[in-house]
Amino acid sequence: MNDILISEVGPRDGLQSIASIMPLEAKKAWIAAQAAAGVTEIEVGSFVPAKLLPQLADTADVVAFARSIPNLTVAVLVPNLKGAEAAVAAGAHKLTLPLSVSETHSLKNVRRTHAQMLDETRAIVALLRSLPAERRPKFEGGLSTAFGCTLEGHVSPDKVVALGVALMEAGCDEVGLSDTTGYANPQQVKDLVRRVRSACGAHALSGLHLHNTRGLGLANVMAGLEVGITTFDSSLGGLGGCPFAPGASGNIVTEDLVFMLEAMGLRTGIDLPKLLAVRDILKAALPREELYGFTPEAGLPLGFVPATAH
Amino acid sequence: MNDILISEVGPRDGLQSIASIMPLEAKKAWIAAQAAAGVTEIEVGSFVPAKLLPQLADTADVVAFARSIPNLTVAVLVPNLKGAEAAVAAGAHKLTLPLSVSETHSLKNVRRTHAQMLDETRAIVALLRSLPAERRPKFEGGLSTAFGCTLEGHVSPDKVVALGVALMEAGCDEVGLSDTTGYANPQQVKDLVRRVRSACGAHALSGLHLHNTRGLGLANVMAGLEVGITTFDSSLGGLGGCPFAPGASGNIVTEDLVFMLEAMGLRTGIDLPKLLAVRDILKAALPREELYGFTPEAGLPLGFVPATAH
Repeated sequence: MNDILISEVGPRDGLQSIASIMPLEAKKAWIAAQAAAGVTEIEVGSFVPAKLLPQLADTADVVAFARSIPNLTVAVLVPNLKGAEAAVAAGAHKLTLPLSVSETHSLKNVRRTHAQMLDETRAIVALLRSLPAERRPKFEGGLSTAFGCTLEGHVSPDKVVALGVALMEAGCDEVGLSDTTGYANPQQVKDLVRRVRSACGAHALSGLHLHNTRGLGLANVMAGLEVGITTFDSSLGGLGGCPFAPGASGNIVTEDLVFMLEAMGLRTGIDLPKLLAVRDILKAALPREELYGFTPEAGLPLGFVPATAH
Repeated sequence: MNDILISEVGPRDGLQSIASIMPLEAKKAWIAAQAAAGVTEIEVGSFVPAKLLPQLADTADVVAFARSIPNLTVAVLVPNLKGAEAAVAAGAHKLTLPLSVSETHSLKNVRRTHAQMLDETRAIVALLRSLPAERRPKFEGGLSTAFGCTLEGHVSPDKVVALGVALMEAGCDEVGLSDTTGYANPQQVKDLVRRVRSACGAHALSGLHLHNTRGLGLANVMAGLEVGITTFDSSLGGLGGCPFAPGASGNIVTEDLVFMLEAMGLRTGIDLPKLLAVRDILKAALPREELYGFTPEAGLPLGFVPATAH
């Protein structure tokens, strides 16, 4: 039994924000190696038009491959009903629809108002409910720019809460909070998690998607842990960010996150030396991209015993 | 009134670990600019033999200059009684004697056993108590390698507590905990702070010296805040580390730390734009050294209002 679920988002959030296109075979090798290291959920791609994100054009093939790995939850991002139909056809286990709390960012990112995105949400829910229960993927509404926006600046927590409630009323299984722009601070994380849970129910919010843009990523994870968050998104090598939020880059680094949690005595189920070795696949497949992370540079402490080994 | 005291250690911990030697005039400009940005405590140097650390050979001159800045606590590191005598002669306001909890590290770092370091502590206390009260500097025992050692590996919390008690009994005004090697994790920070305070008294421990070697620096600050720590050491641009602990580098970055605290609503008294501008002095004076920090790269969030401005 693990204490914390690490949801690897590198194959989606990482790859969508870099210029290089990773070949399908390298994606498969990455996902297989990371699952073999003990990662049980991977966001493997996004069902968006190939002309918008050619890096993720092979998402259906990636999903088909990832489904063949035992005990792996295969997650994808979908921007709309069309994407959800493709995700269902491919057999994804979990769909996330991003809804940007900053409407300016929403219009720039997916050219949709909040009302249009909530219509889309209801249409996706109708599609999913038409499926037999055993084939029905889990559906999450991802509240992006929840902690601030590079275009609007301050984002009102009231708006985050209202949209969280609206997503749950529209039929989402749960909501997540995304610090798309790297604006979040630990106090804000605690406050917002408490407020959304209070309005939507404690089980409606289990996950945080945090960035390390201003170096506060793991401090924000600590804040999330303090208020009971048990799922964290992260990206191997810190690959990626949001290409539509200028200046916003840097997912939290899976390697550093797993090291912190395991050192704290929280089991992730992930084998750290195996996880660190997965970087070699990224380095070989993306020779021109920069990888991040402190633990990979410094190495594990002498005599380190991870929680998962107990 | 500030909520948190930031103790800038770059002119000592930063400069001692790099090959370049910063000219005295640049040190003065750095210290003056950082004080003008609102930093109220700066560790300006170390009274060690010049042949060991030529980078800090001008510490007496730096202290003399720093004392001329109003409302600035001028701190220095002293490895022994001889260093303390020089520090007193120069007029430092605060002395820190590092005592490495890993005796292997202590022998390698200052060639002294624990017993010898405690003798040295008592000799320094006798010197300080012979001074008139108004000229008597504050004296801190710094428990280094408190969270683990690159030479010994695990460091027993019992040993940290015992040495903390011994330093207070020897006459220190307070003790500090140093993560010299970047081994600390947030759970360990909370546990160790609680244990040391329980054994030495809550007022005996107010400060943490954390490194960011494995990316956990600010998460460890968060842990410290949770258990009531109000003083944090940090280094502008993340300059420095411990040259005697192989693989251990990277003080936490003052700019990122101040951003986090101010964003959380905790007043540091520091003007962030002015602080960020101090980096230019370092870049000009140390063109070959790498500076770190995420907030300086990403910039402040749009519409950001720091706590100190309220």
